[in-house]
Amino acid sequence: MGPGPANANPRVLAAQAMPLLGHMHPPFFKIMDEIQAGLRYVFQTSSEYTCLISGTGHAGMEACITNLLEPGETIVIGDKGIWGARAADMAGRFGVNVVDLKKEAGKTFTIAELEAALKEHKPAVLFLCQGDSSTGVHQNLAGLGELCHAHGALLLVDTVCSLGGVPFFADAWGIDAMYSGSQKVLGAPPGAAPLFFSERALKKLRERKTKPMSYNWDLNLIGDYWGWFGSRSYHHTGMVSMWYAMREALQIMGEVGLEGMWARHKRLHEDMWKGLTAMGLEPFVANPADRLVTVNTIKVPEGVDWLALNKFAMDTYNVELAGGLGPTLGRVWRVGIMGYNATPANVELVLTSFREGLKAQGKLKA
Amino acid sequence: MGPGPANANPRVLAAQAMPLLGHMHPPFFKIMDEIQAGLRYVFQTSSEYTCLISGTGHAGMEACITNLLEPGETIVIGDKGIWGARAADMAGRFGVNVVDLKKEAGKTFTIAELEAALKEHKPAVLFLCQGDSSTGVHQNLAGLGELCHAHGALLLVDTVCSLGGVPFFADAWGIDAMYSGSQKVLGAPPGAAPLFFSERALKKLRERKTKPMSYNWDLNLIGDYWGWFGSRSYHHTGMVSMWYAMREALQIMGEVGLEGMWARHKRLHEDMWKGLTAMGLEPFVANPADRLVTVNTIKVPEGVDWLALNKFAMDTYNVELAGGLGPTLGRVWRVGIMGYNATPANVELVLTSFREGLKAQGKLKA
Repeated sequence: MGPGPANANPRVLAAQAMPLLGHMHPPFFKIMDEIQAGLRYVFQTSSEYTCLISGTGHAGMEACITNLLEPGETIVIGDKGIWGARAADMAGRFGVNVVDLKKEAGKTFTIAELEAALKEHKPAVLFLCQGDSSTGVHQNLAGLGELCHAHGALLLVDTVCSLGGVPFFADAWGIDAMYSGSQKVLGAPPGAAPLFFSERALKKLRERKTKPMSYNWDLNLIGDYWGWFGSRSYHHTGMVSMWYAMREALQIMGEVGLEGMWARHKRLHEDMWKGLTAMGLEPFVANPADRLVTVNTIKVPEGVDWLALNKFAMDTYNVELAGGLGPTLGRVWRVGIMGYNATPANVELVLTSFREGLKAQGKLKA
Repeated sequence: MGPGPANANPRVLAAQAMPLLGHMHPPFFKIMDEIQAGLRYVFQTSSEYTCLISGTGHAGMEACITNLLEPGETIVIGDKGIWGARAADMAGRFGVNVVDLKKEAGKTFTIAELEAALKEHKPAVLFLCQGDSSTGVHQNLAGLGELCHAHGALLLVDTVCSLGGVPFFADAWGIDAMYSGSQKVLGAPPGAAPLFFSERALKKLRERKTKPMSYNWDLNLIGDYWGWFGSRSYHHTGMVSMWYAMREALQIMGEVGLEGMWARHKRLHEDMWKGLTAMGLEPFVANPADRLVTVNTIKVPEGVDWLALNKFAMDTYNVELAGGLGPTLGRVWRVGIMGYNATPANVELVLTSFREGLKAQGKLKA
């Protein structure tokens, strides 16, 4: 019940035990087609430009940055937690001009702030993280695609810890590029980064003057393996077992349905906060509308040993609770409500862990 | 029986169905330690600097290049097939000065040729591919480490399709950096690149003036996740299922033993060629000492439709044979003898496929 990897659905794990197909064999291409259909549903897009990056969420981040930007171009990074900082690090390594738009941990950006940054810096790309797992904030994205396009920028979004657990509409929101992770709400093992490009993003890629700096993440070539351009060429060897897992994970998403997923995650988030509040615990994120459903940040009360409580939860109940990360280190616990782990019984176990853990430290208020 | 991915051992596939551990949990670190012990054995090294790159062989290649070289430094690439060409492409994207030392497909480099290139170009790195899967040649590496060091260069080696099937001695041969693949002789699914750095290579990395261009492949950070520097920091989320698979694959390597693996692959290679020769088929690689045991290139005789024969083998016997790649396209078949697939029964099935396939085209000579 940390911020991920979450437990995988046993159906997904079992899919990985199937015999390997060849990475360029027609039956495997059919599996890739099915994965793309599943991704289009989960992203809510009709774009043909979806695929899995053979790597974790970090690989998805790096792939988007190196493909969308040429050296010397500008990216404005909405930096409100560790993921903005990391995107800035990656872009800087590729010779991109980075504008680091900082925001206090626990807060989100307003449209006015972003518009001012777009006007001032005229970036090629604006980066935002929908669900920041280091702070537990949920950045609202509606309307931002239009705003970016009006200022000649592309909108790049990180949905690693949010996709499938909260609403996301790639087309309706005008998102241009997005990457996610396999091991959070989607309930598969770590190792695949679902990726989306809009027509606008693809046009930028196809009209580049320089090659993307990384061969491994060159979407002109990866896209050609995934059939974006009508044929299939070898670029790298697809991660056969991992992709079986992703096909199964996406199949499960389709069975439950996105509305069902979003509603279940929201309900469990509310149930958990009801219980936490009754114990006197408080949310790190002040504005209720900014609270992320899939990764919840809980303030560590004065005098409580957060690490000892985590150890107690693991030793007593086999429950993983996480501490803070980056700007929230030592200040919060982080509790994930994600995919296969998002059940009433698991939320109950988290609440029991906090109740008994605080009691063991003589700090239970209620 | 193509050049890979080969079938995985069912034990390895089953390992992937185990429940996920957290990527920063002590039990998972123990698995990482065990993987490193297995890698040290398979590489024949006592170096502490081994790990899995979370990606395929291409990722291993890119990781070695971006970590060993700073922009403006020179790499001499022993280019005798598609892998040299690809390494040249990758290095060029990172701003490295590339010397493309070309060699006719089917031939290997002599020590004298390499020495001349080292003297002339004074590179920071010499790249060589031990087993070139596009041409079926085996580059002898003994003595080359010493030669490189005498000229101030590091020796970087690709063993993607050869490791475990033919002798390799990282320490005794003075190799400085090496990457391989999971899905060939090691008998695991595609998705992990075993990697090795010598003390010399690590020193180069630690004394860089610039950061490696890719955050994902930054071995200062990856090494810190694998415990190279005494502690453990989060860099990316380890590919939990894939690493279970690699632990099991390395365990099997230990059970069989490297000498047993090398002897079995050599014997089956000889048995196969005995059968092929009896049908009038000829090796693409003229010099017997240069023939790679794990990927065998067989000349397509005049008037034979190689693609039709491959289709016949697949349709009739469920056996994959491959055509050429890069410089050998249309000129050869490629047959893998690799790991779990390296059995007398499979070699027999390959011979039957050729015999009956040639017969079906009216081209069987013997």
